[in-house]
Amino acid sequence: MKTSSRSSKGAPEKCVYFFGGGKAEGTEDRKDLLGGKGARLHGMVRLGLPVPPGFTIATDVCRFFYAHSKSYPSNLATQVSSAARKLEKQMGRGFGSSNRPLLVSVRSGAPASMPGMMDTILNLGLNDETVEALAKESSDPRFAYDSYRRLISMYSDVVLGIPSGEFDNELENLKAERGVHEDFELSHEDLRALVERYKRLIALHNAKFPTDPWEQLWGAVGAVFSSWMNPRAITYRKLNDIPESWGTAVTVQAMVFGNTGDRSATGVAFTRDPSTGERRFFGEFLVNAQGEDVVAGIRTPNPINASSKNESNKDLATMEALMPRVYRQLVQVYKKLEKHYRDMQDIEFTVERGKLYMLQTRNGKRTAQAAVRIAVDMVRERLISKSEAILRIDPEQINQLLHPQIDSNAEKKVIARGLPASPGAATGQIVFDPDVAMDWVQNQKRKVILVRIETSPEDIHGMSVAQGILTARGGMTSHAAVVARGMGKCCVSGCGALSIDYSKREVRIGNSVYKEGELLSLDGGTGEVLLGEVPMIAAATDSFFQTLMSWVDQERRLAVRTNADTPADALVARKFGAEGIGLCRTEHMFFDPDRISAVRQMILADGEIARLDALKKILPMQRGDFYGIFAEMNGLPVTIRLLDPPLHEFIPHSQEDLAALAIQMEVPLDRLVRKADSLREFNPMLGHRGCRLGVSFPEIYRIQVQAIMEAACDLYLEKKWIALPEIMIPLVGDAKEFDFVAKLCREEADRVLKEYQLKVGKKIPIRYLVGSMIELPRAALMADEIAIGCEFFSFGTNDLTQTTYGLSRDDSGMFLKDYLSAKIFEKDPFVVLDQKGVGQLMILATQKGRSVRSAIKVGICGEHGGDPQSIAFCDELGLDYVSCSPFRVPIARLAAAQSHIRRRAASKKTNRRRAS
Amino acid sequence: MKTSSRSSKGAPEKCVYFFGGGKAEGTEDRKDLLGGKGARLHGMVRLGLPVPPGFTIATDVCRFFYAHSKSYPSNLATQVSSAARKLEKQMGRGFGSSNRPLLVSVRSGAPASMPGMMDTILNLGLNDETVEALAKESSDPRFAYDSYRRLISMYSDVVLGIPSGEFDNELENLKAERGVHEDFELSHEDLRALVERYKRLIALHNAKFPTDPWEQLWGAVGAVFSSWMNPRAITYRKLNDIPESWGTAVTVQAMVFGNTGDRSATGVAFTRDPSTGERRFFGEFLVNAQGEDVVAGIRTPNPINASSKNESNKDLATMEALMPRVYRQLVQVYKKLEKHYRDMQDIEFTVERGKLYMLQTRNGKRTAQAAVRIAVDMVRERLISKSEAILRIDPEQINQLLHPQIDSNAEKKVIARGLPASPGAATGQIVFDPDVAMDWVQNQKRKVILVRIETSPEDIHGMSVAQGILTARGGMTSHAAVVARGMGKCCVSGCGALSIDYSKREVRIGNSVYKEGELLSLDGGTGEVLLGEVPMIAAATDSFFQTLMSWVDQERRLAVRTNADTPADALVARKFGAEGIGLCRTEHMFFDPDRISAVRQMILADGEIARLDALKKILPMQRGDFYGIFAEMNGLPVTIRLLDPPLHEFIPHSQEDLAALAIQMEVPLDRLVRKADSLREFNPMLGHRGCRLGVSFPEIYRIQVQAIMEAACDLYLEKKWIALPEIMIPLVGDAKEFDFVAKLCREEADRVLKEYQLKVGKKIPIRYLVGSMIELPRAALMADEIAIGCEFFSFGTNDLTQTTYGLSRDDSGMFLKDYLSAKIFEKDPFVVLDQKGVGQLMILATQKGRSVRSAIKVGICGEHGGDPQSIAFCDELGLDYVSCSPFRVPIARLAAAQSHIRRRAASKKTNRRRAS
Repeated sequence: MKTSSRSSKGAPEKCVYFFGGGKAEGTEDRKDLLGGKGARLHGMVRLGLPVPPGFTIATDVCRFFYAHSKSYPSNLATQVSSAARKLEKQMGRGFGSSNRPLLVSVRSGAPASMPGMMDTILNLGLNDETVEALAKESSDPRFAYDSYRRLISMYSDVVLGIPSGEFDNELENLKAERGVHEDFELSHEDLRALVERYKRLIALHNAKFPTDPWEQLWGAVGAVFSSWMNPRAITYRKLNDIPESWGTAVTVQAMVFGNTGDRSATGVAFTRDPSTGERRFFGEFLVNAQGEDVVAGIRTPNPINASSKNESNKDLATMEALMPRVYRQLVQVYKKLEKHYRDMQDIEFTVERGKLYMLQTRNGKRTAQAAVRIAVDMVRERLISKSEAILRIDPEQINQLLHPQIDSNAEKKVIARGLPASPGAATGQIVFDPDVAMDWVQNQKRKVILVRIETSPEDIHGMSVAQGILTARGGMTSHAAVVARGMGKCCVSGCGALSIDYSKREVRIGNSVYKEGELLSLDGGTGEVLLGEVPMIAAATDSFFQTLMSWVDQERRLAVRTNADTPADALVARKFGAEGIGLCRTEHMFFDPDRISAVRQMILADGEIARLDALKKILPMQRGDFYGIFAEMNGLPVTIRLLDPPLHEFIPHSQEDLAALAIQMEVPLDRLVRKADSLREFNPMLGHRGCRLGVSFPEIYRIQVQAIMEAACDLYLEKKWIALPEIMIPLVGDAKEFDFVAKLCREEADRVLKEYQLKVGKKIPIRYLVGSMIELPRAALMADEIAIGCEFFSFGTNDLTQTTYGLSRDDSGMFLKDYLSAKIFEKDPFVVLDQKGVGQLMILATQKGRSVRSAIKVGICGEHGGDPQSIAFCDELGLDYVSCSPFRVPIARLAAAQSHIRRRAASKKTNRRRAS
Repeated sequence: MKTSSRSSKGAPEKCVYFFGGGKAEGTEDRKDLLGGKGARLHGMVRLGLPVPPGFTIATDVCRFFYAHSKSYPSNLATQVSSAARKLEKQMGRGFGSSNRPLLVSVRSGAPASMPGMMDTILNLGLNDETVEALAKESSDPRFAYDSYRRLISMYSDVVLGIPSGEFDNELENLKAERGVHEDFELSHEDLRALVERYKRLIALHNAKFPTDPWEQLWGAVGAVFSSWMNPRAITYRKLNDIPESWGTAVTVQAMVFGNTGDRSATGVAFTRDPSTGERRFFGEFLVNAQGEDVVAGIRTPNPINASSKNESNKDLATMEALMPRVYRQLVQVYKKLEKHYRDMQDIEFTVERGKLYMLQTRNGKRTAQAAVRIAVDMVRERLISKSEAILRIDPEQINQLLHPQIDSNAEKKVIARGLPASPGAATGQIVFDPDVAMDWVQNQKRKVILVRIETSPEDIHGMSVAQGILTARGGMTSHAAVVARGMGKCCVSGCGALSIDYSKREVRIGNSVYKEGELLSLDGGTGEVLLGEVPMIAAATDSFFQTLMSWVDQERRLAVRTNADTPADALVARKFGAEGIGLCRTEHMFFDPDRISAVRQMILADGEIARLDALKKILPMQRGDFYGIFAEMNGLPVTIRLLDPPLHEFIPHSQEDLAALAIQMEVPLDRLVRKADSLREFNPMLGHRGCRLGVSFPEIYRIQVQAIMEAACDLYLEKKWIALPEIMIPLVGDAKEFDFVAKLCREEADRVLKEYQLKVGKKIPIRYLVGSMIELPRAALMADEIAIGCEFFSFGTNDLTQTTYGLSRDDSGMFLKDYLSAKIFEKDPFVVLDQKGVGQLMILATQKGRSVRSAIKVGICGEHGGDPQSIAFCDELGLDYVSCSPFRVPIARLAAAQSHIRRRAASKKTNRRRAS
């Protein structure tokens, strides 16, 4: 053992915490110090439950270990010895004793659960002498040698670094020699021989298995600390936001044995059903077995009780029947645990010769459905409050309830991995062309997956009929991702492994080629691309979900709106609880195949008159669109963003399209080509788009406002339904610019209202607002000037992130991965709002805006409006609403409630601190 | 006359200021109130000079006029009557008197000079009666009727709105009828008949020339106020930054007549030579003529003295000879004026029957050369201080001294107008292709103008041999503009009227077509495109200029560096006084035709090893580039920006280029095409560029740093010259990102230094800095975090403007004109720094940076670094240096000195105010 020769700066005074004999030095609330597993062991001892004694080496030793070139604090050795002596005494056994040897397990345990990511060693303390003692004492030499060979292979793998496969080979060879199939068919002599083979194998690697139990112990402790930085653990932490600085604890615990005959057993159980949430005790166990045997699935485990029976185990005896006394004790234990921890528990137990030992309890993992049901039930059982129930649900998990999911038991052949751009799962035939997609789906009733290098507004019709969308390029906020989320449709984007050849109608992934028509499945929650058809679980919300969401709505301050561009989207969102539309994009209305040619005529027209002609064709269509949306949202506000995309995007690409258009427009082709070329841009995101269109071509915005106001008036006159249009001007960078465009919008709106008033002889009671997107840094910087003439702000955080970082979301896929892997970015800033940078601008804009217009309505309509962390930030900033895609509305409602509850709790704490 | 019926809010108490009889109610320092012309008249009266009496209606009446639907303050009429009575008394004449009629002129006069932009009416007070009185009194009926017909046509044009051309036609008809050629050949009877014809003409327009002199007066006053808002005046104000709110004054002054016989005359003079600045009294005059005759050029004016003689007037008698007494008086007057106003004066005078009257004095317009000489001379004459001399020079004017200019007397045929992107003038044959340009210039010794839709780094060789560059697209900071300014070469960019057809090798402008080889001239100072060859004036700096610049350098705090990418540029800039290089771009080093293929190999290489192979080919070339630049800048800092442009820009465009590259790289063409396609970006400006390249491909930056440090070491070892490299990391958005890249730069730099130390056995005394561009809003917002590990900041205001506004400088040309004409933008923010918006971020970044590292060096290297207004802002912000293209270095030095002088004056003022 290496202790720090350098300064012991940061060395903890107390390194080791003992538990056992009804007392524990640690407490269950010190996960940070003892790790999750350790804290719970200390807790269970304090609860008076039967737990094998042991001690925990605290996480601060791990921190010290990494801060000091993998050495230990100088006081650690003494504290470990002293704890071990206490352990020996309580167990009435000796470490390395050739009479009654003490065996221990050494387990990792981080403050946050990292299942299977770090190392564990069991049966420590065995050597050639103690194994004989164990054999004698247990009168079971097979059990003793089986434990011994397990120790050697585990230790060699974890501490000595010899691949476990080599030990498995020896075992298989031996079984072949003996002509047996199962491990348990080997005799204790066989196992003794296996131990010798294992030792020879270790020698071949120039290593040695230590016979001194103390050396075994320190080797194991060092290996567990080292496993904190193994690649698996690093990756897991990154994926789960666990800081590296937390470190792991190590728990050394006396071994108890479920494999010492028929009065022994080992098992796992859930205090409620982890997949449905039903309130029933539920588990399985194996007689005469060690814990790993249950997990390994070598034998089919028995059900612990009648309600745990299923197809495969229904004929096996239950624990209730086989060990009624121990079972009753276990039931008492689980009830105590659930009441104490006020959550569903996942427990591990061992029965050694009729005596029950609890090895672990933790809050059980569960499906989204179970999470909701358990939370709601526990409120009804008065175990937790409504606020706690709300806080227990991970907002992202709700996606599982709203979208079909790939059956987690299904076999999957993952052929590529992209970004999990829009949740859900889908199976269908590969098509590369949106028109083919339309044809196959509508005429041939097939199901398709649309596979594209990237998507553009021209692909919308294909996207809308596809089961799912797969793209080779584009990030989490690419066109494909945003549109798919809007449609509630599964999407995997930025799947760089795809090499798509449109002309050959095939996609290459590595060395395999997949043709149009082949079956593919997508998992939009993981980003996996799967070969063939994969079984799925349908989307389902139930009454528990409805109950929870009704509590959620009582607990939040922030309103939740939706981004919806069509009446269908609006309807879905309203069902999901949207309280208005925060972003109705109008460009989709221009890209419809029926309209695009009129739109192109408008753009390529020379002069205002030709443009007005083309616009007049679009007016009735737009009016119809708005009418439908206003009807669905009757009585709720609808924020309509005037035309935003770069003119560039509307320009026909192909010579054929241009030629057709020239004929329609009756202009010479070469003039049209020249005009089209002159409109192409190098950086369309920074180009002629947003309100710049309204400045250059005021007639476009006028006609949009006309359509909006006429739709609102018609709806009122026909149905007495009330539309609340909020006209939103995109890409504003300056107050004068906003004022210029807002003026023409108000002129047009008032003109329409006056016209209707004249027509029907009374005033139409439609009120409208005119507001500004805040999506450029300059808009945030000038928000005080802009707010003077502006009735609402809406943060377009996609573009704001784009310009604040100078980072194109369409192009960033190529290098963002380098940033994530170099740890420069923790998260994709297009997914999780950059509170430090972009957030500064949002704070500035909100403060400046409210400084001149205290009641200005402020919302967010970027993709971040559906991200729980970002929603919490918006809540704290005091925004009035967030807006997100329809299928994220419930998630946003939940996240908003959670933020509000947490903030209320924090402010109570602050108040209490002040009062005291 | 219409007085305000509404509230008289804002009505001035005193509207009218009288001058005459040696006394003046106004003072010369109240230009704001009396207009420039008026204030000077009041001033001259106070100086005791002979000035015809009159009165000025103040500018606040003009403001009132426009604020109250073109009506007057209610007290104006009384004040005008009373002033007019005083005037009648002083002149001993009566307004409308049929005995001794008083004639007056009514002239505009704004606080800033707006020559010829507004209206003036002379000879007011004449009608059918008073003209006879004037004829009788002057015994010169021809003079009287000539004055009368002039009044009628002028009044009709200005007040009644009848085109003056129609009156000119009548005059021409009459001359034809009489068989004469010149106006003065018409008799007084002819002129009387002409007056009648004029009246009939007016009647045909359903108008009437008022016979009441008072009516004439009010009509004229109203017309002058109205002319403040005529289109010419509006345009002129916009071009010259004159606020609309200033308004114009109106001066009503008694007429004196230079056309009352041989003892009368009229003339104009400059107190020094306005084109060279030489100290000689210089002017011309006409005997028996009115002021407009001198200007109109009908007769060749006489020189006033011997030194005013030139080719065309050398045989005419001088005023000194013809009117010696009056001339001597004039000399005394001019000396008094120059001494009083301490500047070169442009004066107008009239001699009426031997009596001298001063009609106007103003600071004379002058060429850049004259401006410098006059300022330097006046310091030597102790008329002004060095600071005043410095403040007198318009920094932009210095361009005239540094670049050839189109001769202002030349005839020009303007065929199109673009942006004045890079000053100077050029003539050459049209070529459309940079290779053709090279060939024609190098092999055929022709001079060429390179005409492109836009330029890209691949065109550099063509640009470098061309006389000038003309592009159809791109703004003031487009590639063409920036590179041309760097080369000190004339460029007109964004000339939207051009429709270029590369394949036909022709450019269409309107209906005309110009082929390759045709002669074209460019004026980079005005943006004019001219047909054929146009005479030019060569660039010239003289000893006066050197003297002035030496004073400038004593007066400034801000250092001035240059943007230079080559030893040649560095040499030019150093001659112009650059104190270092603030921006050495390295991408130009990659685009060289000799290197581009190695660069492309590097980019398209799969994996680090292939990339390193390609990079190794580039290393010695880069080292050579840096060696040359360091040698030119020996002892001065050189800021080198690591590779910045989007990878996108390096990708070969054509199939041929790709095919050739595939052969060189020995990879299959289709793989290369796929790779190239995968690198193309939608918005390259926001894409894989700047330090993102250094994160993805650290080896690129490593090799650049290696080249920099090896060049510095070699230079030291070979010549003992000291390089001061400042390694600058572009497009930083986050501290972690900067730290990541800075770390690898420092590792590499230290490695090279250590290697040299080992090689030569001693330490190489080369110190280097590593710093960050601040060119993204997020960098400004996070400047405190970035500054922790960063030794300098350099504001890249081109990109910072681009991202703050979300505005592509390459694409904004298409709609920026709409913004300027709608008055949303006052200026192109790429030309004049947006202090309100972008400036906020600069202030924030500077404060945040200095809050953690007080000595951090901060500079600016965007194009704004050469703009005087922006330089003043940088000075105020306390930046350490500005950096600009070589030819703007003198301008920047001057602007920096001016800013410093102004700030010192302002702070003295504040201190005095505090002390009192």
